[in-house]
Amino acid sequence: MGKVRVNFFCVSMDGFGAGPDQSLQQPLGIGGESLHEWAFGTRTFQKMFGKEGGSTGIDDEFLVRSFDNLGAWIMGRNMFGPIRGRWPDEEWQGWWGPNPPYHSPVFVLTNHSRAPLDMEGGTTFHFVTDGIHAALERARAAANGKDIRVLGGASTIRQYLQARLIDEMHLVVVPKLLGQGEPLFTGVDLVKLGYSVTQQVTSETVLHVIVTKN
Amino acid sequence: MGKVRVNFFCVSMDGFGAGPDQSLQQPLGIGGESLHEWAFGTRTFQKMFGKEGGSTGIDDEFLVRSFDNLGAWIMGRNMFGPIRGRWPDEEWQGWWGPNPPYHSPVFVLTNHSRAPLDMEGGTTFHFVTDGIHAALERARAAANGKDIRVLGGASTIRQYLQARLIDEMHLVVVPKLLGQGEPLFTGVDLVKLGYSVTQQVTSETVLHVIVTKN
Repeated sequence: MGKVRVNFFCVSMDGFGAGPDQSLQQPLGIGGESLHEWAFGTRTFQKMFGKEGGSTGIDDEFLVRSFDNLGAWIMGRNMFGPIRGRWPDEEWQGWWGPNPPYHSPVFVLTNHSRAPLDMEGGTTFHFVTDGIHAALERARAAANGKDIRVLGGASTIRQYLQARLIDEMHLVVVPKLLGQGEPLFTGVDLVKLGYSVTQQVTSETVLHVIVTKN
Repeated sequence: MGKVRVNFFCVSMDGFGAGPDQSLQQPLGIGGESLHEWAFGTRTFQKMFGKEGGSTGIDDEFLVRSFDNLGAWIMGRNMFGPIRGRWPDEEWQGWWGPNPPYHSPVFVLTNHSRAPLDMEGGTTFHFVTDGIHAALERARAAANGKDIRVLGGASTIRQYLQARLIDEMHLVVVPKLLGQGEPLFTGVDLVKLGYSVTQQVTSETVLHVIVTKN
């Protein structure tokens, strides 16, 4: 059975996974994009935007590994888009254009049902209205023995952590302050839940930490 | 006029400056000492314990700098000791033995008055019962133009940050999880208060960040 993983989830030094006031213009909330800037120069990031070159090394290695052996993905509705409440129509198809970088089934947690959405490149968005356990079951069935990656946002990861359903989590602590936003650790006592740090690597700009369920 | 500084304040990746349940046996609370383990091997730390040798490099340089140009110190009562409420007698003289590593006046924030306490090596503990502003005024007078270092704990630093009285803060983000304890950032929106990250350096084990008041 595949693992349930979080990879490359960036958190500010004051504990936020995204800034406040998400909008169409600011998918990661105010200041949230700054949590990812340090990775823009890596080879893998450049490739995602169709460019050549970029840096290799620790940061890029973690980024490459974050795409390894994945059979399905789970994300919260706010990560899928800025729309709240009922879907007004079928128009919104995510932030990622016609060919999203997932290339396998993505299960989107939402309270509002919607028909599955087939995209180019093998990505299908499935909208799951019956909770995190149901989403994980469907992801497991789709993943066919491969790993499942819980993408975010912070609230989605918190819910899976509280249920002890995450096996391994790669967090990136970024030396930025957001002040407000979506907290990752609030109300989640990882020690009590049986998680511990099993690996740590510093790159030139950030702190990579692997947190594992005991 | 000297700066008001925080130096070498270690914070876990989940945001705690100390663990829960401080006691005589665990001055930094449960798990809190683990926030400082990475520094034990440095030359400066070894010297503090009367030993020779130890590592030099980034971590040790920050540690050396943390003692530079200081004229006075401020700490919270829980950093001074595990006693709560009124002082039962004059017996408790801090955690640091007869010759504490401060060598200048230290102003201890407390609600319970007590006579000043002269120690060896130039350290005098003054007990200040009229609040953080009064403590800072007295520290300024004593520092004679040199800098003042606010030592901690987290609650003391939070109070000075909320009053925008800290000029510069060197934080060390340590890849440890405490789960519970004394949070540094809770209720303190550093961005709104006008603080920003002005320098970041990674060592092999931790992330050093300088946060400066705009």
